[in-house]
Amino acid sequence: MAQEVTQELAQEILGDIDNFLFDCDGVLWDVKGPIEGSLETINKLKALGKRVCLVTNNSLKTRQKSVRKCQRLGYQICQDEMLCTSWIAAEYLRSINFTGKVYLVGPEDSMGAELDAVGIKHIGTEPEPAVIPSYADCLANLKLDPEVKCVLVGFDRQFNYMKMLRASSYLKNPDVLFLGTNPDHLLPVKSDEFCIPDTGCILSPLVLATGRQPTMMGKPSPNMFEVLRKVHGLDPSRCMMVGDRLDTDILFAKNCGMHSMLVLSGISTVEDVQSAGASDATKACPDFYAECLAAFGQFV
Amino acid sequence: MAQEVTQELAQEILGDIDNFLFDCDGVLWDVKGPIEGSLETINKLKALGKRVCLVTNNSLKTRQKSVRKCQRLGYQICQDEMLCTSWIAAEYLRSINFTGKVYLVGPEDSMGAELDAVGIKHIGTEPEPAVIPSYADCLANLKLDPEVKCVLVGFDRQFNYMKMLRASSYLKNPDVLFLGTNPDHLLPVKSDEFCIPDTGCILSPLVLATGRQPTMMGKPSPNMFEVLRKVHGLDPSRCMMVGDRLDTDILFAKNCGMHSMLVLSGISTVEDVQSAGASDATKACPDFYAECLAAFGQFV
Repeated sequence: MAQEVTQELAQEILGDIDNFLFDCDGVLWDVKGPIEGSLETINKLKALGKRVCLVTNNSLKTRQKSVRKCQRLGYQICQDEMLCTSWIAAEYLRSINFTGKVYLVGPEDSMGAELDAVGIKHIGTEPEPAVIPSYADCLANLKLDPEVKCVLVGFDRQFNYMKMLRASSYLKNPDVLFLGTNPDHLLPVKSDEFCIPDTGCILSPLVLATGRQPTMMGKPSPNMFEVLRKVHGLDPSRCMMVGDRLDTDILFAKNCGMHSMLVLSGISTVEDVQSAGASDATKACPDFYAECLAAFGQFV
Repeated sequence: MAQEVTQELAQEILGDIDNFLFDCDGVLWDVKGPIEGSLETINKLKALGKRVCLVTNNSLKTRQKSVRKCQRLGYQICQDEMLCTSWIAAEYLRSINFTGKVYLVGPEDSMGAELDAVGIKHIGTEPEPAVIPSYADCLANLKLDPEVKCVLVGFDRQFNYMKMLRASSYLKNPDVLFLGTNPDHLLPVKSDEFCIPDTGCILSPLVLATGRQPTMMGKPSPNMFEVLRKVHGLDPSRCMMVGDRLDTDILFAKNCGMHSMLVLSGISTVEDVQSAGASDATKACPDFYAECLAAFGQFV
């Protein structure tokens, strides 16, 4: 059972945990701007000598740009403490000595730039024709590049049928790797009017067409933690993941053996916490929860 | 257990069945042209006084254009004997006295034309911007029309992220109907090189984003048979569906209480027949199977 953070529990947490990992959207900021009291909480933790890392599934920024955004908002974070999926995908391919070309379904200026930085060639971000009048035109446009050995999919607002067709056709070859940045169905935006599909919705037609499942780079897959563990020598039993989603952040914590805290300033609700784990294996139950990060911060 | 058609079984079939329903792609023709002997088989059945109807999940043609294609290939079919999903969707909305506007994900010149023919207003087929530089531009482009009361999805080569976003946002309102022409994952094209996503792949991100399931117009849903039953007064126990796919054609037959025959000139294989029903409830086992339509026709 998840416990709501109290002064007493906060003191226990501070005794047990050396490293705090934070999700960004819904924890530090949301679509309206910074979430009140989050910066102060992070600064208090740093003043106590705790290591702070940020772990985001967002693939729209390079690691460098993510660090700059944090710094603009007052967060003193260095590149080694910032993990984002555009960078982790490039780092993953570098670590396995990937030598082919990548067919990229994702933004050139973030995912493309991170691939460039590790010297991996990629195609896919050139504009596709907006109107494809016939089936014959469709196939005539579909020249496959035999050097492509990986399809990498992130959040791509330029996604369209031709990209779906190309990506599925590359993936027909079982030797072509299939990587996805993150499985999230919806962007972390609360809206009564709009329903904003995220990367999971761009991956789903490819999964259906090919019968293949992508290797996931972001939360809840443990890839991101592996990189942190290597760089900083982290012991997961001394780490706590703080996030706003049971299906990514809290499940990530469980998958990596970390402690976890849900904040209610984003997607998941206290009702979700109560039903988590019991009925739905895709949503993990956190160890602790708090209204927002500041509700924990008041006890730090 | 499915039985391969023999002379003896063919005579039994001809005794029991008055109405033969045929799928088109993979049965009458394929991407290379007419399938040898299919036309002759249909003509023999008609000469014996059997009723012949064609039932296709293809949403790229109006019913009128589908009939014209058949006639060009020699099939003497009238409009009442031709069922296609572009027409059935419009017919379905007409039959429930739908008065709102449709947000259409599908071709203007087939699905749009069929909606026009029954006087149903629709939007969605205007070109979307090919490049959406930012999140803010994305939402600025997203003015929702309050008159839209149905999202209708067919095979749309113009499908892109903006359409996904719009359709999902309309579907956030539970009063907005969600209709799909057909659940097929792949077009019925055998290719070693290409993997060509069909309507099921266009529906899947909408299902994931909204948590809703579409009401399906085409096979294997019984909607299409209901229309035939009304128009021609068909008794399903005197009907046989002949198709090339276990998951659409043969399942459609089971769902409607018809007899069924699989032909091996399209998607499903004799190995699929052997494993059908046992391990996978989405694939029904046919009563009979034959190499191709002509393999049955030789006994007619």
